[in-house]
Amino acid sequence: MADIPARTEMRVTTGPIRGSRKIHVGPLKVAMREIDLERGSGEPPVRVYDTSGPYTDPDARIDIMAGLPTLRRDWIMGRGDVEAYDAREIKPEDNGLKGPDRSGGVQPFPNLVKRPLRAKAGMNVSQMHYARRGIITPEMEYVAERENLGRAAQAEYVRDGEDWGASIPDYVTPEFVREEVARGRAIIPNNINHPESEPMAIGRNFLVKINANIGNSAVASDVASEVDKLVWSIRWGADTVMDLSTGRNIHDTREWIIRNSPVPIGTVPIYQALEKVGGIAEDLTWDVFRDTLIEQAEQGVDYFTIHAGVRLPYIPLTAKRVTGIVSRGGSIMAKWCLAHHKESFLYEHFDEITEIMKAYDIAYSLGDGLRPGSIADANDEAQFAELYTLGELTRRAWEQDVQVMIEGPGHVPMHKIKQNMDKQLEACGEAPFYTLGPLTTDIAPGYDHITSGIGAAMIGWYGTAMLCYVTPKEHLGLPDRDDVKVGVVTYKLAAHAADLAKGHPAAKVRDDALSRARFEFRWRDQFNLSLDPDTAEQYHDQTLPAEGAKSAHFCSMCGPKFCSMKISQEVRDFAAKQNQPATTFLAAEEAEAGMKEMSEIFRETGSELYMGAGGREHD
Amino acid sequence: MADIPARTEMRVTTGPIRGSRKIHVGPLKVAMREIDLERGSGEPPVRVYDTSGPYTDPDARIDIMAGLPTLRRDWIMGRGDVEAYDAREIKPEDNGLKGPDRSGGVQPFPNLVKRPLRAKAGMNVSQMHYARRGIITPEMEYVAERENLGRAAQAEYVRDGEDWGASIPDYVTPEFVREEVARGRAIIPNNINHPESEPMAIGRNFLVKINANIGNSAVASDVASEVDKLVWSIRWGADTVMDLSTGRNIHDTREWIIRNSPVPIGTVPIYQALEKVGGIAEDLTWDVFRDTLIEQAEQGVDYFTIHAGVRLPYIPLTAKRVTGIVSRGGSIMAKWCLAHHKESFLYEHFDEITEIMKAYDIAYSLGDGLRPGSIADANDEAQFAELYTLGELTRRAWEQDVQVMIEGPGHVPMHKIKQNMDKQLEACGEAPFYTLGPLTTDIAPGYDHITSGIGAAMIGWYGTAMLCYVTPKEHLGLPDRDDVKVGVVTYKLAAHAADLAKGHPAAKVRDDALSRARFEFRWRDQFNLSLDPDTAEQYHDQTLPAEGAKSAHFCSMCGPKFCSMKISQEVRDFAAKQNQPATTFLAAEEAEAGMKEMSEIFRETGSELYMGAGGREHD
Repeated sequence: MADIPARTEMRVTTGPIRGSRKIHVGPLKVAMREIDLERGSGEPPVRVYDTSGPYTDPDARIDIMAGLPTLRRDWIMGRGDVEAYDAREIKPEDNGLKGPDRSGGVQPFPNLVKRPLRAKAGMNVSQMHYARRGIITPEMEYVAERENLGRAAQAEYVRDGEDWGASIPDYVTPEFVREEVARGRAIIPNNINHPESEPMAIGRNFLVKINANIGNSAVASDVASEVDKLVWSIRWGADTVMDLSTGRNIHDTREWIIRNSPVPIGTVPIYQALEKVGGIAEDLTWDVFRDTLIEQAEQGVDYFTIHAGVRLPYIPLTAKRVTGIVSRGGSIMAKWCLAHHKESFLYEHFDEITEIMKAYDIAYSLGDGLRPGSIADANDEAQFAELYTLGELTRRAWEQDVQVMIEGPGHVPMHKIKQNMDKQLEACGEAPFYTLGPLTTDIAPGYDHITSGIGAAMIGWYGTAMLCYVTPKEHLGLPDRDDVKVGVVTYKLAAHAADLAKGHPAAKVRDDALSRARFEFRWRDQFNLSLDPDTAEQYHDQTLPAEGAKSAHFCSMCGPKFCSMKISQEVRDFAAKQNQPATTFLAAEEAEAGMKEMSEIFRETGSELYMGAGGREHD
Repeated sequence: MADIPARTEMRVTTGPIRGSRKIHVGPLKVAMREIDLERGSGEPPVRVYDTSGPYTDPDARIDIMAGLPTLRRDWIMGRGDVEAYDAREIKPEDNGLKGPDRSGGVQPFPNLVKRPLRAKAGMNVSQMHYARRGIITPEMEYVAERENLGRAAQAEYVRDGEDWGASIPDYVTPEFVREEVARGRAIIPNNINHPESEPMAIGRNFLVKINANIGNSAVASDVASEVDKLVWSIRWGADTVMDLSTGRNIHDTREWIIRNSPVPIGTVPIYQALEKVGGIAEDLTWDVFRDTLIEQAEQGVDYFTIHAGVRLPYIPLTAKRVTGIVSRGGSIMAKWCLAHHKESFLYEHFDEITEIMKAYDIAYSLGDGLRPGSIADANDEAQFAELYTLGELTRRAWEQDVQVMIEGPGHVPMHKIKQNMDKQLEACGEAPFYTLGPLTTDIAPGYDHITSGIGAAMIGWYGTAMLCYVTPKEHLGLPDRDDVKVGVVTYKLAAHAADLAKGHPAAKVRDDALSRARFEFRWRDQFNLSLDPDTAEQYHDQTLPAEGAKSAHFCSMCGPKFCSMKISQEVRDFAAKQNQPATTFLAAEEAEAGMKEMSEIFRETGSELYMGAGGREHD
């Protein structure tokens, strides 16, 4: 056995996010963050969606050797439809090993569950199944509270947005969540063997979510950094995390990640299956794949990317492409199909896969193996042929009440983005769309978080439910800690821009609070309300480091004399003084009337032009 | 006098951009860059638009004490409509000084032009004036060649894009440039006193341009860094640069910048005028402002931002706003109007300003002083009231054949962006739109190059001709060298994404070349074709630093076994081998037919499944 690393080596990032407090709202104690604003500003605290789990809660005891508390365990057991059973035995090949010697590998998770849960024979434990039977689960209640950001229902709310046919409610009730899950328009990915997760919904009528990818690789990485990448990603706002590990230690690494994750974890099981057959795509079999699904289901993976839409007849459609097949899973399956001249075993065994999914409540993320990898290949025949097959598979999964989302591109110029959304809605019956970007140009490697952030914001606006992040290292190398943060924050702002444009009732509160803080020179509030308070403050301090500058009524860009905000305050004060108390905003028409009147007085008295700074000194 | 800094302190960034060569195309020797691709790839070199001037030309001798060569001097003199005259005397207050002592200040530019040019009495030297008289100027010819990126006219070109009613030609002729300038749909900003500039066009039917802002400030900065900021901005792609300096040394700093700039320089003259009256907005007068216009006109400023649309009756409309007036120029004028209870002197004297503009061929950039500074204030009454006034002023400027572009917002959620473009087109008769972003959310200070890059790409697609960059320091502090580069590259990619979506015939060539390089693992070509080859290579090398990895047929993200590009190559090779020579792409239908045939053969012979990597070894 390898030496067990000292506990101190396994530390992860903890502590509150600067300027905000963890709060727990309602009977289910739904975790959120609250940002207190400057005393005397008269501003209420702002509640924000929080994905960071207990790691940012100073009252929580974090021990990654023990894993997180099992928040959902009682809910799951309370439904009486699951049974514990002896887990499938862990095999050397699960960790990419040839024999029982695990030296040099990752230590096994100490607190391993030996008897995982599954649905009792004949039962279906998916949230969709409950929803369709009219049952509102605690998971749905949790989601409702979370989506409202702790707001009370508002009697009057003026909607401002273009939602392209979505049905976003003014206030999210548990019943609304149930309906959305029942009709397949939203999913709550939460494997019954991942009771540590805080329920969240992915759907067109909820806040737009983002996913971050982590994973070791054949070339670099180690487990300690993988766990911290998870914690780091969710700190900045990743709603789900995909573990895309390949190579050695893949089983044990995943166990560490899931046991310590408050967000749903997704995987691409074909990656591990390929490892088990020595990396030879042609050697993949349904049995190896099925065994891998069970292995990961027992560990608690919440959604599986399954590339069942890469069908044999579609593969030649990619031959004319500039960049062929760029999905790893897609290319593995394409190679298998070609080598065997057979239809994909994922497609052929799809209903059997669904049987497994419903026994653990794992959601499908139907992979777009034929997504375009370049602007030239966007919206082509191969891509859309697969999409319509994904629609067919969605309906087949729904027949068994299994939750489904659909993966989307990729590389798409702006004028072809909406077509992706429209076709997905049509083909897949409004099952949530989950896209990678899309990148809107190919010419900026090193900046692909931005080329794709543009496409992500747009497709999120059009109706995509979750956006898979892209880091600055995309196409070039493995992201480090800084890259992950930049990728997550970029996608968080893209998702928020989408929520705003859709007119989501909870979205604009934060923009308005920040803008008021900006206008009133409440620097500290401006930092704290931002998606990345650390960077905002650091950038400010690079020019004006003194503590006093945080209360200065100007900033470094213009200096005190040229500050438009300051002048604008004076303009407002001046206008307000005309005929209203200074504490209220003046209606524009009244201000105009007031000024006309003043001009007349002025002309009548024949005085000199007054030179005051907004008062009535000329009188 | 201050000590003259040693020449070595005044150095700027020179040398070729990695992986590309400067070329000069056609009789006018239009500067472009050419990127040579790997020998043996069979790929032609890719020509790209180049804004970097002589600084990236190894054959050019750079001496910023002497300034750049006066490329356009002969063209200007050759028209016979200008005269040299004794320049307005430089006054201490031009540099923010109280007396003749210039110690501690910036040294004057050594090679100062004592006798600037202006139109002879009764003449009009604007490009619009020539265009309307049917004259194709060398400037127009230069622009045509430049916009075509040295392409020859193509007989057949399949357009792929949505141009929202633009009229982008397949090939740009000098006559097309003339027509566009004549009807006001494009401008060529080039003051006759800035003969160092390389002509460029800003218009909806040309490549989307970007602007970078530089400028000292009351709080930080110095002249040497300002000149290098110019050189650094244009190196990465800034098409024009605005000098937003305030405070001391403003005149001399501007002289250094213009004499060394191959791109048009814009300013906001009200900033300097305000300095001259001690920073008291109410003390501004038409005479001081007019004198400042002449001062800057003689130096060679190519376009002036004039906030003549901030009219007295619109000011109260801003009182209810969350962030009031955020434009510096707008707030200065608002304060002046309110203090005097008078209509703006810029509006009142607009035709006189136009008289000055046409004598030097300075273009208007009609400032949006009432642009929204927050999501809450987007598309409000104040903003659009001003926009329609800008439309009125456009028509008045056009009456004197003076070139005009229109500045636009600011902060706008995605669903309100298109309305900005549509109203601008309607109100301003297709005069080029020049927007700041817009930022699509307020909650990400530190990432506002991205929140605004999203809006910039979209509004560029809808028809905006030039995008004013935003750096990561926006709202927080002064951008440093890295921030300027990140801002420029972000906007360059946004502009390119817009060109692609509009279906600009010259745009997709680079994306396709880069994507082919990516698919074929030509790493060096991928770096060189990118907007920022240095960063692309650096990111790659952080994971796989060895030189050998640059020719590796895999990368660090997936490692060799999981490389989808590699598998996809195999798939393509396999498909191609069916019944076509491997050197040509196979039509999808043919490939499919070929594979069906093979499957049949396979079944007939009853062989085992073959396990080869794409060959026909089972035969």
